[in-house]
Amino acid sequence: MTSQTLDETAKGVFVISATPFTDDGSLDLESTDRLIDFYLERSVHGITVLGMMGEAPKLTHEESILFLGRVLARVKNRVPVVAGVSNPGIGNLAKLAHQAMDLGAAGVMVAPAAGLKTEDQIFAYFSQVFTLLGPKIPVCFQDYPQNTTVFSSVATLNRLVDNFPQLVMLKHEDFPGLRKVTQLRQQAERDGRRRISILVGNGGLYFPQELRRGVDGAMTGFAFPEMLVETFNRATAGDFDGAENVFDTYLPLVRHEYQPGIGLAIRKEILRRRGAIACAATRAPGARLDRDDHAELDILLHRLDARLRA
Amino acid sequence: MTSQTLDETAKGVFVISATPFTDDGSLDLESTDRLIDFYLERSVHGITVLGMMGEAPKLTHEESILFLGRVLARVKNRVPVVAGVSNPGIGNLAKLAHQAMDLGAAGVMVAPAAGLKTEDQIFAYFSQVFTLLGPKIPVCFQDYPQNTTVFSSVATLNRLVDNFPQLVMLKHEDFPGLRKVTQLRQQAERDGRRRISILVGNGGLYFPQELRRGVDGAMTGFAFPEMLVETFNRATAGDFDGAENVFDTYLPLVRHEYQPGIGLAIRKEILRRRGAIACAATRAPGARLDRDDHAELDILLHRLDARLRA
Amino acid sequence: MTSQTLDETAKGVFVISATPFTDDGSLDLESTDRLIDFYLERSVHGITVLGMMGEAPKLTHEESILFLGRVLARVKNRVPVVAGVSNPGIGNLAKLAHQAMDLGAAGVMVAPAAGLKTEDQIFAYFSQVFTLLGPKIPVCFQDYPQNTTVFSSVATLNRLVDNFPQLVMLKHEDFPGLRKVTQLRQQAERDGRRRISILVGNGGLYFPQELRRGVDGAMTGFAFPEMLVETFNRATAGDFDGAENVFDTYLPLVRHEYQPGIGLAIRKEILRRRGAIACAATRAPGARLDRDDHAELDILLHRLDARLRA
Amino acid sequence: MTSQTLDETAKGVFVISATPFTDDGSLDLESTDRLIDFYLERSVHGITVLGMMGEAPKLTHEESILFLGRVLARVKNRVPVVAGVSNPGIGNLAKLAHQAMDLGAAGVMVAPAAGLKTEDQIFAYFSQVFTLLGPKIPVCFQDYPQNTTVFSSVATLNRLVDNFPQLVMLKHEDFPGLRKVTQLRQQAERDGRRRISILVGNGGLYFPQELRRGVDGAMTGFAFPEMLVETFNRATAGDFDGAENVFDTYLPLVRHEYQPGIGLAIRKEILRRRGAIACAATRAPGARLDRDDHAELDILLHRLDARLRA
Repeated sequence: MTSQTLDETAKGVFVISATPFTDDGSLDLESTDRLIDFYLERSVHGITVLGMMGEAPKLTHEESILFLGRVLARVKNRVPVVAGVSNPGIGNLAKLAHQAMDLGAAGVMVAPAAGLKTEDQIFAYFSQVFTLLGPKIPVCFQDYPQNTTVFSSVATLNRLVDNFPQLVMLKHEDFPGLRKVTQLRQQAERDGRRRISILVGNGGLYFPQELRRGVDGAMTGFAFPEMLVETFNRATAGDFDGAENVFDTYLPLVRHEYQPGIGLAIRKEILRRRGAIACAATRAPGARLDRDDHAELDILLHRLDARLRA
Repeated sequence: MTSQTLDETAKGVFVISATPFTDDGSLDLESTDRLIDFYLERSVHGITVLGMMGEAPKLTHEESILFLGRVLARVKNRVPVVAGVSNPGIGNLAKLAHQAMDLGAAGVMVAPAAGLKTEDQIFAYFSQVFTLLGPKIPVCFQDYPQNTTVFSSVATLNRLVDNFPQLVMLKHEDFPGLRKVTQLRQQAERDGRRRISILVGNGGLYFPQELRRGVDGAMTGFAFPEMLVETFNRATAGDFDGAENVFDTYLPLVRHEYQPGIGLAIRKEILRRRGAIACAATRAPGARLDRDDHAELDILLHRLDARLRA
Repeated sequence: MTSQTLDETAKGVFVISATPFTDDGSLDLESTDRLIDFYLERSVHGITVLGMMGEAPKLTHEESILFLGRVLARVKNRVPVVAGVSNPGIGNLAKLAHQAMDLGAAGVMVAPAAGLKTEDQIFAYFSQVFTLLGPKIPVCFQDYPQNTTVFSSVATLNRLVDNFPQLVMLKHEDFPGLRKVTQLRQQAERDGRRRISILVGNGGLYFPQELRRGVDGAMTGFAFPEMLVETFNRATAGDFDGAENVFDTYLPLVRHEYQPGIGLAIRKEILRRRGAIACAATRAPGARLDRDDHAELDILLHRLDARLRA
Repeated sequence: MTSQTLDETAKGVFVISATPFTDDGSLDLESTDRLIDFYLERSVHGITVLGMMGEAPKLTHEESILFLGRVLARVKNRVPVVAGVSNPGIGNLAKLAHQAMDLGAAGVMVAPAAGLKTEDQIFAYFSQVFTLLGPKIPVCFQDYPQNTTVFSSVATLNRLVDNFPQLVMLKHEDFPGLRKVTQLRQQAERDGRRRISILVGNGGLYFPQELRRGVDGAMTGFAFPEMLVETFNRATAGDFDGAENVFDTYLPLVRHEYQPGIGLAIRKEILRRRGAIACAATRAPGARLDRDDHAELDILLHRLDARLRA
């Protein structure tokens, strides 16, 4: 099926793909092709689909499969594709995961189910998930407590790493999480623990700081993925200061997309303006930009343009 | 399609149907028939399927349709069937609602989407929902903030009633909500507002008090629905004290099922012991009774039995 | 100072004392004396003051000291008095704890601070607390996640027990928590861990079940503490069924007081009607019974009276 | 008492003052003087004390009065001082408010109490607050739902403005809140509603956008208040683009301080490095910078310095 399989060595920018819709809310498969091309032309190292910013909970199972298949057909194994499979039921989660792998995904991403309260429950939940997925599906743990309201100690993450070899990646978007990154890295080294890949989310708001602390890249959907790639490349070459210069140029936009709710609508509108998708619509209930929002975005983009030309 | 249509005059006990699964987690359609017979034999006035206690978020769209169809085929219009259609996306919510009505449901139940923050947002959300449902689908508003974390003032509920004639029922499970019931009733009378049906949830924990305050019945899934029916019948006949006597006999069990999480597993186990379903399994992640839980339930059921014989 | 010191052998009913106010919101010290006499006459085994149901966050530090001093002067060492000392700042928590012990308290109760997210943070928080309290102050951990939104695994509670000998008691009010009680007891036995006292909160809603699972009593403020005492005494004598009979007689009232918010106002009104305090007022913002609430309570108390006479 | 009284015309930068502590956690009154001088030398237009970032919940009533008195004595009426008085009990809130005004505060700031659920409850809460404060104390409403978990619609804020003339200011820190600012301004104009002062919080993360949308300034504690002042002054002079240039230069630091929890520790450390306070300690439980955090901050400050010199 795929020559790409996710493992602990994954590095770089895994862009969280938007899911393009038409104005009436149906999947826009032509824009899907265009969007994938847009990402690949900007040299992303991987693509993640069906994440929360991909509006996955608003897709039916069939739509998820349809969209994922289209993405994989377009990517043609040039980069690994990770499929978000989080679901209120573990059975349906596992079903989607197996289908995704059969279609050619490189791995799947799972967030702890909303409603888990204690860290013993988090561990038990993932034990069930890994049992149903089997040992062959590589998994990325999405640690995103602002959204899930499920918080994980470093100790719990370590316990999962120690028990489940198929856990190869952490999408780190606890907030604040800078120290958590350092603790994960230091404790892995100190204890001889398997070193997994850590990619940062949260819109990349602290990406330069996280790179200095030892993350392997970013998994986020910022509408200028070329900035994330360039920041990563410079940091990887040891030029952290240059990396941060690139990043800071775009920081006003990173911050603007960071707004909960309307941030996704802004991101899709930028992608639309850049020609990557035909329509910026999000599925209801979702934000929609009004005239003031557009004017505000005009200014921010104009200012970015001026900085880039300077 | 159906001779039953939900309207403001709805009264009585609308039992929240469990969704029976086999031990491997698939839908158990034979138990579905048996369960529906069980409910009808106990003279419930209506049946609600695909609610939260029906594990609806763990069913795919197709499973929901399959299960609902089976229920409707078994009920054969003897009582109205309400279909829960809550969904993170309004488009898929509306699609399921239209399909449910086409299959013969009497109306649909909608809870405000998780993530709504202000009451202006609640109103806007339901405006979108009602627009997509159209004027012909009767709707029950599920006011269940402990689960959705969306809280609605009486003023907001009144505003919805005033603006949307298709809103005919409130499933009231705010907690505490006794005063809210009184305020809804008194303000409707004072302002000449349309009087909608109010059925209580929360496992019926305060059912006698709520009946005295003017609710029209209960919509909950207590595993002894005959108690709810008898309590309702006595109250309707004016014998509130007799109603409360019936209720109090079962109160230790009502309270036992009231526990979050494990309560549903207890309910299904009682239904299994009563012969209504073949297997008590809930879909993962879900609670499962252990030996201690079973022994505890034995005692509670034995004590109920003794009280009923006394 | 005191001949009473809290330790792991604590058993029985530690009633959570209400804090009596006058109608204008000031501390009512005469009612305090009367209330303490009321509790002692009903043979409670201990008294806990300045808990959440004692409206502690609405008292200034000075008021807390004043109230606690009055209580201790009235109790005259006949039963141990536990002082709630939870506070957003650990410094002020420790200050109050030391003052309380100097005044003659038997121990202090501490809930994890709101805002703790992970269980590593819970452990770190209590490490700081125990450092500031020193080794000589016995501590009761209040595990009340519905209120604090801080959830603790059994593993974390065990870790605290293992590390801090001054942790002698757990006020258990996780919900649901029946299985948690069993796990705590079984793991302590299995691992040879120190067995601490476990008293149940949550209004005692599951007290008979919890007694069968091995708790040592209750720490709650139900307005008929004589029922809790009698239930405990029968269970201690091995008559669990008789214990549950006593409890079930009062269950409709236990459930009525269980309502968040208004439950405390109901409890204080019952205490007022029973002559234990002069005024049922809670400090603003707090619930106040209206005419309907009073009428409803009349019925419930009348029905209790009838059951007791039967 | 004071020649300064807060009213609807308030404009500019009201810096949220840190509360300086010594390493052992006591109030550092000498640093308080120094810090106030630091703020005044940077031409702030007002000072707010005892806010959440001032660790107010960790101060006793007496400490609050002591600190506020020291600040007022140092300010000597040169700028208005707003006192945060939020408290779980309205009685103690009112007591502190009256004392603060007697000491010379220009007004008080109140956030809705944690635990309010519906917007009817928010309105009722502030009705009680305004009754106890009386008509003469100017009030700033702190709309900070990320911290209080109490969300207010524009309709509810308007209702408060319409009913309470003493409500003269909104500290706006809903998130996202850009559209809310626009709606408040537009609806006030459309309806002929009293126009109140709106100052933005949230660390000022969207200050330039909010200035363009019509806010009157900022109330936040960024450790470089001179940036906020300069941004405000340029925007007031009509040079919004110049304002945003100033702001963007500091944006990496604004973002760095924005982190929940550790952000306050970073802010205090910057104030310490700038000579404004002697010690960066926050009261326990609070974050403390470790070696990595310091090194990270070194880089960010060095980069800021380089940008300022460029």
